[in-house]
Amino acid sequence: MLKDVTLGKKFSKENLKKIMDASLGDELGQVQRDCRDAGMPIIILIEGWRHSRRSEILGMLMQNMDARGFRVYSAAKFCDELLGKTFFAPFWQQLPFPGGIAVYRHSWYYLKNSAEINGKKSMVKPTTFEHINAFEKQLIDGHYCLLKFFIHISEETQKDNIKKSKKILGKAWKEIHSIYTEEGDYKKFFKRYDEMLEATNTKEAPWRVIDGEDLQNAQLDLYTTVVKELRKALVAFKLDQGTKKPATGQSLVPIADKPLSKVNLSLTISKEDYKNKLEEYQAKLKVLQARALEAGLSTIIAFEGWDAGGKGGAIKRLTNALDPLSYQVNPTSAPNAVEKQYQYMWRFWVNMPRRGEMAIFDRTWYGRVMVERVEHFTADVDWQRAYAEINETEKQWYDDDVAIAKFWLQIDKDEQEKRFKEREADPNKEWKITDEDWRNRGKWDDYEVAVNEMITKTSTSYAPWTIVEAINKEFARIKVLKTVTELLEARLK
Amino acid sequence: MLKDVTLGKKFSKENLKKIMDASLGDELGQVQRDCRDAGMPIIILIEGWRHSRRSEILGMLMQNMDARGFRVYSAAKFCDELLGKTFFAPFWQQLPFPGGIAVYRHSWYYLKNSAEINGKKSMVKPTTFEHINAFEKQLIDGHYCLLKFFIHISEETQKDNIKKSKKILGKAWKEIHSIYTEEGDYKKFFKRYDEMLEATNTKEAPWRVIDGEDLQNAQLDLYTTVVKELRKALVAFKLDQGTKKPATGQSLVPIADKPLSKVNLSLTISKEDYKNKLEEYQAKLKVLQARALEAGLSTIIAFEGWDAGGKGGAIKRLTNALDPLSYQVNPTSAPNAVEKQYQYMWRFWVNMPRRGEMAIFDRTWYGRVMVERVEHFTADVDWQRAYAEINETEKQWYDDDVAIAKFWLQIDKDEQEKRFKEREADPNKEWKITDEDWRNRGKWDDYEVAVNEMITKTSTSYAPWTIVEAINKEFARIKVLKTVTELLEARLK
Repeated sequence: MLKDVTLGKKFSKENLKKIMDASLGDELGQVQRDCRDAGMPIIILIEGWRHSRRSEILGMLMQNMDARGFRVYSAAKFCDELLGKTFFAPFWQQLPFPGGIAVYRHSWYYLKNSAEINGKKSMVKPTTFEHINAFEKQLIDGHYCLLKFFIHISEETQKDNIKKSKKILGKAWKEIHSIYTEEGDYKKFFKRYDEMLEATNTKEAPWRVIDGEDLQNAQLDLYTTVVKELRKALVAFKLDQGTKKPATGQSLVPIADKPLSKVNLSLTISKEDYKNKLEEYQAKLKVLQARALEAGLSTIIAFEGWDAGGKGGAIKRLTNALDPLSYQVNPTSAPNAVEKQYQYMWRFWVNMPRRGEMAIFDRTWYGRVMVERVEHFTADVDWQRAYAEINETEKQWYDDDVAIAKFWLQIDKDEQEKRFKEREADPNKEWKITDEDWRNRGKWDDYEVAVNEMITKTSTSYAPWTIVEAINKEFARIKVLKTVTELLEARLK
Repeated sequence: MLKDVTLGKKFSKENLKKIMDASLGDELGQVQRDCRDAGMPIIILIEGWRHSRRSEILGMLMQNMDARGFRVYSAAKFCDELLGKTFFAPFWQQLPFPGGIAVYRHSWYYLKNSAEINGKKSMVKPTTFEHINAFEKQLIDGHYCLLKFFIHISEETQKDNIKKSKKILGKAWKEIHSIYTEEGDYKKFFKRYDEMLEATNTKEAPWRVIDGEDLQNAQLDLYTTVVKELRKALVAFKLDQGTKKPATGQSLVPIADKPLSKVNLSLTISKEDYKNKLEEYQAKLKVLQARALEAGLSTIIAFEGWDAGGKGGAIKRLTNALDPLSYQVNPTSAPNAVEKQYQYMWRFWVNMPRRGEMAIFDRTWYGRVMVERVEHFTADVDWQRAYAEINETEKQWYDDDVAIAKFWLQIDKDEQEKRFKEREADPNKEWKITDEDWRNRGKWDDYEVAVNEMITKTSTSYAPWTIVEAINKEFARIKVLKTVTELLEARLK
């Protein structure tokens, strides 16, 4: 893309005068308030050459915005802990609220370049353009407005700008060593940036190259483009909000395979055997956890299953072997008021394990294609798209040195009824059973359709489902422990 | 405190048997659910000797808790960014929700010890016992339940435990080098811990020493103490919720001094002078910002003042000089649904500047003693206590290399009416004026009493108020710029 740009074109003097005109600030203020009222979340990223005076170009935009509701971020300032949670986690964590604005001076593009240039010194592995495009598509499909800018300058201007900056700051000037330098390598970086822009200039999220040769020119260009694009996006956003079709829960591409029907629910284990295997696997797991921490292999363990399927008990036997500082159990229920403000994956991204640690999810992101589908909480188009989104996300995790195990705890309808009644009869367990559990049970068949489709469409080589025969609780617990142990052993080889 | 402890006492065999009894887990589950229902937030910290098997002692507690609503933290794992926000900021940021539980295996006590032992290598400066006691008192006065445990073992047991741990983990065992070692220094650390416990064993937040010589014994002791103390705390919590006196907004100790009445509102500056000074101070500030970043001096700038007093314009002239990546404007309005769940200072703590950066607050924590007092939003006892709490907090910031400027923008009643009407007449500004502004204006005299008291009681040597004569907007802007510039120059000397 950069090859096609002729630098140095300028706005007319008349237009430039506008930059000093107060009415410009009013325009941005107005569209910003409109976006806030409509609840459209906005992400603006300003990539570009170093020393392209991005601070001043961005500064002019910020000066004319209402401070209420925007935040400036820089991937160059992410701390190791955040980066350890995999490449895209920091950006998910920082997603703006509806009506809020996140501005990135260094975004995922910077982070990819930086990880490639720094190699092993980097806390993150470089991601691929495919992952970036998938990530951006998820945001856009989730109704985030994404504007991508690249400030382009010539080699001469870059040199000039460095000189000027040194002069202004005097002794206080210093090269920021944590950020890679482009000095002396303009041609090499031109090629890098050009390829980057080409590969990620998608229909949904096109790049806008800003001519940075002249500061005021660039400021005005960025400013007017942001105002124009926000207005356009707002129209689309409102249109889309108004045209939701009623949810039906019906699959677009029904599947023939019914993995749940093939489960042998009569599998059991003897008490003696259980005791021995429990001890054996828990001891192994203790050691594997220490090794994973050392090696920086993170683990995500997802538990799904019928109500009263024994998830809690299985999790307990798993965590019993673990150092409490290196795992976290994340229970998932209906999204709360805050969680509802974000794309549905947000609340799982913010609970990603730290580097080398383990995150256990008691119910998961698969709620999107189960309860949200069956109960018609989510438009068909949205949960139907989720299979691909989830597969992409789990691939991103896998590529970032995360081991993933997903368990479906399978029981039958009779067993569930038996367990519900047992719980109701036990004063220490009755709180576990609510009217909702009985209601969900009434929709057993709908859930079965959804689960069969889910397991079929999201069983991948990098994140396979394990269906656990769970009528015999001891058998289920050992199968879970064995699967996790073998997964870690394989990934730590 | 440690001197008085005779180690090695044991529970009877009968009691120890209970540890395997399922009813124990039910007890904790029940009190945990009761605390959740009542909305009591809980902080449990487990300090103690290294190799006192805290993982296992804590693990047993966690195994018997409902994963819903508790998080385990370790100050040994805080990233530099979090630590750079001053000593107590990470703990504030992690405050539990009502009904939630935060468990610290390494708490502020560890962080203080570690900062002292690591000296200049540490990202935080060690705090004082006074600050710790004040911090804990603020939490307790804010209705957080705080339980502090210290796991105590003898030198022999420590040596034994290291041996055992090496045996279990085999090759996977390694000393965690980021945590200071106590090996070979038992006596020295005994003295350190003993003094620490003595100095912070307050009536509000007493220490509980757990005898860690025998693992099961310690597990049972911790478990039963937590159950007992939570039950006690819950009774007090509910009692306190039920006995709030109606708010009156009246001061307990009215003050004679009226700083607002001494302001000379006729001060002005010429256009020419304004232009020159603006340029001069903005240029200075640019350099000072770079120097502050280099030196690690953070800045907090608090703006308060009458509605339409010109805060926005003053902030704009300030930020105009700054690199957008190194400052953040935090507008404060009525707390939202999430913010209401926490102690009132929480939302300001989470917006602390990163090390060397600047946080500008457009309205501040002083809302506690202004709008919350005048509008009777807060019980008298709570806002009356806030003067001392705010002074303590600002002292904590100051001691942590934060420069603090606080501005009150003073206009008179006539000027405010003029500005309100001007705004209403301008289509680009009318959104700034709401019915609430007119309502607040009706309580001018009540606010005046509150502001006079606030300025008098919270003007300290480390965080003085600057009253800005703001009828002439240009004069006000220059005074703000000059004050910030001089503050930074003084602190950077």
